[in-house]
Amino acid sequence: MKDVATAAGVALKTVSRVVNGEPGVHPATAERVRAAIDRLGYSRNESARVLRSGRTATIGLVIEDVADPFYSGLSRAVEGVVIGHGCLLLSGSSGEEPGRERELVETFCARRVDGLIMVPAGDDHTYLWAELETGTPVVFADRPPGSGIDVDTVLTDNAGGAALAVRHLLGHGHHRIAFLGDDPEIYTAAERLRGYRAALGGLFDERLVWMGPPSPDPVRAALDGMFTLESPPTALFTGNGRYTVTTLRALAGRRVALVGFDDFELADLLDPAVSTVAQDPSWMGRVAAELLFRRLRGDTGRPEHIELPVRLIPRGSGELPPPPR
Amino acid sequence: MKDVATAAGVALKTVSRVVNGEPGVHPATAERVRAAIDRLGYSRNESARVLRSGRTATIGLVIEDVADPFYSGLSRAVEGVVIGHGCLLLSGSSGEEPGRERELVETFCARRVDGLIMVPAGDDHTYLWAELETGTPVVFADRPPGSGIDVDTVLTDNAGGAALAVRHLLGHGHHRIAFLGDDPEIYTAAERLRGYRAALGGLFDERLVWMGPPSPDPVRAALDGMFTLESPPTALFTGNGRYTVTTLRALAGRRVALVGFDDFELADLLDPAVSTVAQDPSWMGRVAAELLFRRLRGDTGRPEHIELPVRLIPRGSGELPPPPR
Repeated sequence: MKDVATAAGVALKTVSRVVNGEPGVHPATAERVRAAIDRLGYSRNESARVLRSGRTATIGLVIEDVADPFYSGLSRAVEGVVIGHGCLLLSGSSGEEPGRERELVETFCARRVDGLIMVPAGDDHTYLWAELETGTPVVFADRPPGSGIDVDTVLTDNAGGAALAVRHLLGHGHHRIAFLGDDPEIYTAAERLRGYRAALGGLFDERLVWMGPPSPDPVRAALDGMFTLESPPTALFTGNGRYTVTTLRALAGRRVALVGFDDFELADLLDPAVSTVAQDPSWMGRVAAELLFRRLRGDTGRPEHIELPVRLIPRGSGELPPPPR
Repeated sequence: MKDVATAAGVALKTVSRVVNGEPGVHPATAERVRAAIDRLGYSRNESARVLRSGRTATIGLVIEDVADPFYSGLSRAVEGVVIGHGCLLLSGSSGEEPGRERELVETFCARRVDGLIMVPAGDDHTYLWAELETGTPVVFADRPPGSGIDVDTVLTDNAGGAALAVRHLLGHGHHRIAFLGDDPEIYTAAERLRGYRAALGGLFDERLVWMGPPSPDPVRAALDGMFTLESPPTALFTGNGRYTVTTLRALAGRRVALVGFDDFELADLLDPAVSTVAQDPSWMGRVAAELLFRRLRGDTGRPEHIELPVRLIPRGSGELPPPPR
């Protein structure tokens, strides 16, 4: 701000008035200040404004588990935007427990965070009403809030991504495509099931669907059960990165076509290399955080519902043909 | 605390006095309160004490990059301890930039965090003097502070782990063992080089050492150079998880014995499965955070320097024999 004042030949107070939209500055002077700001690339005015208005310059982030690569990628991107705005990040993992989510959110609000980004664990967020009333912006990422709450959301095209995976496998000659995914109580899992089912149409067979936590033993048992069916699956669609890894381990080298939702670092090094439907957690984090700061800068427009596209990365496992009859 | 007061049949104020070690409580009464605390498993007295004394109940954590699985594992463990003590976690990634590390630390201190856990990027931490003077405890994890600062540290036995890897390869008949690792400016990389060199003794050959950032092209070029030596390496020791992955990619299926420092999720699914020297980032995070809270509870003993052991996990790649001459 000092550099801007010097460049524009005005007092520091004048720069502050222009940046904060306060009255008492001659239009020509204001124009000179704005030109100096542009010239110097002074982009931290929003954080100056945030600090000015008695805010805490702290953002709260609630995710499912920072040790999960999807959420650590999202976390890193949110952190980048938050720190770039001169704010700090309070973060916590809900561990998929609604009670923990609420506890974290309430603690963050008690500390008067300026805004919240959350990946919800529960499906009742009416407890946010009071906080939303006071004007604290909240952005939901990855999963939407429960009913009764209409706030900004940044989600992935989960159903579309699942349909993409299934159509890819159908295109390679598979008709028996199984789905292994998280509990359908989890929004993303339910959406992926929906896309899977829609893309399969009349080929859908509930015996080829298994949903629950990605624990090794149940997943192995589910696969064993499917493979002893009279008409066993020739291809698998796994509902998230953890599921893909658990399934690959359960397959123990058995060659079955597979497409997994979520990309993961070593997908290209496995044999066969694993075809995936890739989300971009960094992108999601960036978009959610930028949206939050737009609200903090005063954007009071209707809640936005952003859906991020996914892309299919063919690497080998999703292109395996069905075994000869 | 209310339950304790009821169970011991005393006033709330009395419980608070006992918990905080204040005078004015009859020894027999204090004993009754302590028994009630034990009986009820009232373990949050330290957080009560923290809050009582006008602290902010906020801990700052600076790591290298939360998107790196080692640091996200550490982060999750620190978060667990911090939240378990009724405190919140401010966190930020330095991205291996000393300036960023210092900026984060100074911002955290300006927000009056009660304590700091940091994985340093730089090697000058004299800027912490003022903060340490005011009594804010600081624990360094993964890497020690620069000279002039003596605080608690929780490190891994890096040199011992590297020696373990090299001795394992020597035991499988290798005499030409290459080391690929991060820049030796990074403490852990320098320590691992030291352990590698010590274990090799007279077999050390500087042409088999390559250190720098784990970027694909330079690593591939370094390997190509080594493999064209008259006496090429028959085994590789990679200096961290990222290096192992980059090296495996650069090898493109070429079968060379390999042990990597740091375990990683899919090590068992690769072919051959990858033998590793495993650190436990969760353990490191837990130990560092518990140590910090011990300091916050008033432990003013000399700084502790904890070194965590590692273990070698043989999975196949580290047990490949040298090729026949």
